Amino acid sequence: MIDRFALNQATTKYWPLDELVAGCADAGVRAVGLWREEVEEYGVQKAAALVHDAGLTVSSLCRGGFFDKPDWYDENRRALDEAAALGAPSLVLVSGGLSDGSRDVDAARAHIGEAIGRLVPHALSVGVRLAIEPLHPMFCSDRCVVSSLGQALDLAAPHPAEAVGVVIDTYHLWWDDQVWTLIARAGQERRIACFQLADWITPLPEGVLLGRGLPGTGCIELGRFAEAVDAAGYDGFIEVEVFHADVWARPGAAVLADAIAGYQAIVSSGRS
Amino acid sequence: MIDRFALNQATTKYWPLDELVAGCADAGVRAVGLWREEVEEYGVQKAAALVHDAGLTVSSLCRGGFFDKPDWYDENRRALDEAAALGAPSLVLVSGGLSDGSRDVDAARAHIGEAIGRLVPHALSVGVRLAIEPLHPMFCSDRCVVSSLGQALDLAAPHPAEAVGVVIDTYHLWWDDQVWTLIARAGQERRIACFQLADWITPLPEGVLLGRGLPGTGCIELGRFAEAVDAAGYDGFIEVEVFHADVWARPGAAVLADAIAGYQAIVSSGRS
Repeated sequence: MIDRFALNQATTKYWPLDELVAGCADAGVRAVGLWREEVEEYGVQKAAALVHDAGLTVSSLCRGGFFDKPDWYDENRRALDEAAALGAPSLVLVSGGLSDGSRDVDAARAHIGEAIGRLVPHALSVGVRLAIEPLHPMFCSDRCVVSSLGQALDLAAPHPAEAVGVVIDTYHLWWDDQVWTLIARAGQERRIACFQLADWITPLPEGVLLGRGLPGTGCIELGRFAEAVDAAGYDGFIEVEVFHADVWARPGAAVLADAIAGYQAIVSSGRS
Repeated sequence: MIDRFALNQATTKYWPLDELVAGCADAGVRAVGLWREEVEEYGVQKAAALVHDAGLTVSSLCRGGFFDKPDWYDENRRALDEAAALGAPSLVLVSGGLSDGSRDVDAARAHIGEAIGRLVPHALSVGVRLAIEPLHPMFCSDRCVVSSLGQALDLAAPHPAEAVGVVIDTYHLWWDDQVWTLIARAGQERRIACFQLADWITPLPEGVLLGRGLPGTGCIELGRFAEAVDAAGYDGFIEVEVFHADVWARPGAAVLADAIAGYQAIVSSGRS
């Protein structure tokens, strides 16, 4: 029943990696989505061994991207290498916002297209997929100018599907009346690299980053998303990825139990 | 040079209506966008006389909509009557979010379409246009499930252009890579009822409602918007509509001066 569930590490940000891995293994979880900062702090090789020795796999590595930074090329090559070392099939890309003082969103978007093109050969050589994540439009200026699944698919289109895919994150996409058509298109184009669940709750906090709800606590039709992504042919892991200060303040194992329960309610109700 | 400038009253929320009207007249401003709460408090007929005696016109009345409330029909008919009494060509519609506990965004959107259809006869009879405003997707759950200009145009499409139009507000639409095409479509379909300027600044405050910047203080290509809306054939007023606690804390006349200066920089730089 939780074969496809994965815990994204950001959901339990302060749970130390070794405890998180042990807690997931105890709960019967098969995969974890990891974050570079935590993995680097622990040691990449050591983290890879820890996860694999516990019988888990890495569903994705977060995150590359931020193509608005001067060192984006070297940073993203390093991130691809780390993903490969962890056995993660995908590197999630948060592509960056406008550079300081810029209003040229077209130029920022064009630059992302070029940057991804430059990274494709390395992605292919290490066997890790670049997974373009469209972020909610409220993050357009400061985190990610890729604001819709359509844009992400257009950015991926020039490249082989094994090199470049997209992330479907319910939190970022639920408001879009085109999303169901776009998920079907993503499936036809074999681009779905990662599927992440988080719920929409209000009021949004200052800065809006830490406003996500655990699955089932908000207003998103998560079962409909699960069904649509399934119908599009995706059969990989489904990550629960929630950022919220109140969630982070709780013990990791308790959050994991809630994440699993929320996930189970969705996959059992949402599928035909 | 400021022939087409209009001050939306929400920009100077705490400026009493009589002072606002006098301040606008002194500054050579020709139009104001008014809000129902303030107008009702002052008295609708009295407000109409005040504005017209000062040589101003009302560019729009904010706001109708909120079709998720039980009394939407009567409220919107009243709002149309008030707009007519003020001589406002348009009633701006903020269409409402999901009803409490609902996750059915499709149903909410369908209901808006039906509600607008029911209001069209009264709008035609009083000569006021229903102006559907797409709000930024971050407001989708709690304020407005109409999240893109494309959706607003689709909702307007079944009705005569003189009865139903759309609002183009830079703050809500700037992130959308389809917006330039959609503005052109809005022009072809003669749907542009209202054009509002506000800038995007970060970080967003808690609740995200009061996070707008005066024109020129943020990252939106406002000149490009002015040019696109002009090219689409719109020749009406251009309202500056900003909600921000820091702006509200300042004297109305000073905010008006900044709003005019921001507007002038945009229309002089943005037009070919």
